[in-house]
Amino acid sequence: MSSSTTTRPTLEIVARHAGVSRQTVSNALNAPHVVKAATLQRVRASIDELGYRPSSAARQLRTRRSRVLGLRLEPVQDGINGAVLDRFLHALTDSAQERGYRVMLFTAADDRQEIARYGELLDTDDLDAFVLTSTHRDDHRAAWLTEHGIPFVTFGRPWAAQDQGGHPWVDVDGRSGTQAAVAHLRELGHRRIAFLGWPEGSDLGADRAAGWLTGMADRGLSTRELQRLRVGVPDGVATGAQGTERLLADADPTAIVAASDSLALGALTVARRNRVAVVGFDDTPVAAAVGLSSVAQPLTAAAGAAVDLLLAQLGEGGPVPDRQVLLSPHLVRRATSTPPPAH
Amino acid sequence: MSSSTTTRPTLEIVARHAGVSRQTVSNALNAPHVVKAATLQRVRASIDELGYRPSSAARQLRTRRSRVLGLRLEPVQDGINGAVLDRFLHALTDSAQERGYRVMLFTAADDRQEIARYGELLDTDDLDAFVLTSTHRDDHRAAWLTEHGIPFVTFGRPWAAQDQGGHPWVDVDGRSGTQAAVAHLRELGHRRIAFLGWPEGSDLGADRAAGWLTGMADRGLSTRELQRLRVGVPDGVATGAQGTERLLADADPTAIVAASDSLALGALTVARRNRVAVVGFDDTPVAAAVGLSSVAQPLTAAAGAAVDLLLAQLGEGGPVPDRQVLLSPHLVRRATSTPPPAH
Repeated sequence: MSSSTTTRPTLEIVARHAGVSRQTVSNALNAPHVVKAATLQRVRASIDELGYRPSSAARQLRTRRSRVLGLRLEPVQDGINGAVLDRFLHALTDSAQERGYRVMLFTAADDRQEIARYGELLDTDDLDAFVLTSTHRDDHRAAWLTEHGIPFVTFGRPWAAQDQGGHPWVDVDGRSGTQAAVAHLRELGHRRIAFLGWPEGSDLGADRAAGWLTGMADRGLSTRELQRLRVGVPDGVATGAQGTERLLADADPTAIVAASDSLALGALTVARRNRVAVVGFDDTPVAAAVGLSSVAQPLTAAAGAAVDLLLAQLGEGGPVPDRQVLLSPHLVRRATSTPPPAH
Repeated sequence: MSSSTTTRPTLEIVARHAGVSRQTVSNALNAPHVVKAATLQRVRASIDELGYRPSSAARQLRTRRSRVLGLRLEPVQDGINGAVLDRFLHALTDSAQERGYRVMLFTAADDRQEIARYGELLDTDDLDAFVLTSTHRDDHRAAWLTEHGIPFVTFGRPWAAQDQGGHPWVDVDGRSGTQAAVAHLRELGHRRIAFLGWPEGSDLGADRAAGWLTGMADRGLSTRELQRLRVGVPDGVATGAQGTERLLADADPTAIVAASDSLALGALTVARRNRVAVVGFDDTPVAAAVGLSSVAQPLTAAAGAAVDLLLAQLGEGGPVPDRQVLLSPHLVRRATSTPPPAH
């Protein structure tokens, strides 16, 4: 699985190092009172020197539940949208602790390494379950955990349609969020509402775009007009500003729904002087700080549901009604929810 | 220590519940092969039902190092300055993992509860050491850990002078940061540079104020003028705006050094229309997003030093030159570093 798993010293190696039998090492570990003090000391010295650790199976036998949940902490990205996962982590730690569980963090460069870490962690740290974030298509992590019979839940749905009924997951309905943003802007009097999203290829982005499109459906705009009212740029403040310039030049919108607060912030730098309303997504601290309306994810509820789904798998905390939980976000209205200019 | 520690079932209680001797329970835990299958099943059922867990001492004996570091995850506060501790956590998880350690999270309402958690965690989760954040005067956490001989390091120095030589800590020299901010604004041509800080009583705040005062020392301003150029308000964007209004009315500054990015953001909402330069503190994602100059903490270096200090205590990773590490922040210059208006 990983190099550290295969090179880990065995009981055999410890026995040879200490010049005792395997049974003596086993006794030193499991029934030290039956081992002579001098021998015990020698075995322990070998254990320390070699860095030997009893297998998780043996530890599980003794302790059954470790009451520890593993979570991969993703690297800090642009720092604006990353705040969502940090807030989820706070909520998850709270929820877990209320039920007597802890959260253990690890890092990994990619999914493959994350899977390798599962093996290491189960072997050395005796975890009960994992929480996965940032799900995507062809996500081999869930398959690996399912195959190995390890309880887990994902924050984020499996995006491939055939997997939707599969493993337990919690997610937030982005589509209903952008749809609510459009409805809010329509209430303010806007008709030409643009969507500032990401390039094709992101399921999360397609979901948020779909909510905008649904909201715009009965606006009497042609398919061609709707196409011009939509732009896809990589996430970021600068790219958000560029995308907005393009929208303003091509489609003359009076309002913009953005797929993220980063994009929305970029939009704001351009839109403010054009009196264009802007709604972001994720209600990050930046949104609150600059007065940006934004779609907020119910992260406390999501973390609570994730822990419920895990405890149900661990045979604790009673059955849960659903194995898949899709929560609705809500709109936070702030200063950038301006009406369109008077005609 | 805590109620859950005192009410935790003992081996005795498990034995009575399962209708077996203490020795049989001990055997079921430590040498299951010597126990009859039916008895083993009964003991394990009792262990599960009662939630019994062997003491950490017994587990320590077997595994010696858990290679797990405990950290209290503080509640999300205004979300702007909290980003610093979240980024420290990312860096700490990375640094720890490079050295084969994991970070285990827990939450606590206050220091007292945090201390109670130390006891629980050591008893049930077999941690090696703790990382403490948000140090302050009369911080009983460090004393408790020292008394109990548990390795720890604080991110943040003990503020009482008599403790400075005590336990291992890592901190960032806020004073040199605000001094660098003043020097930077002076280079741009500013003379009347105000300090937007917190109310009296915060050591962190006093330290950052001291750097500003040092930077202003040879400016030929009277003590009275310096007093008018300084205001203390609770942390936040709205309070930062209020404090700035007061500074503008009372002292006519051309530039402001703020003790936090939250305060700086509040200052910006007022200062921009008055063409006042602003420098924040912590270089949070918000600062980058809105173009705010800010003093950046070297969080990766701080986390690395914290892990070094812990490993030295755990007898791993070799000796470290210092038990106390004070790192220098650096200034990040952005759009709010404007020169004073021409006379």
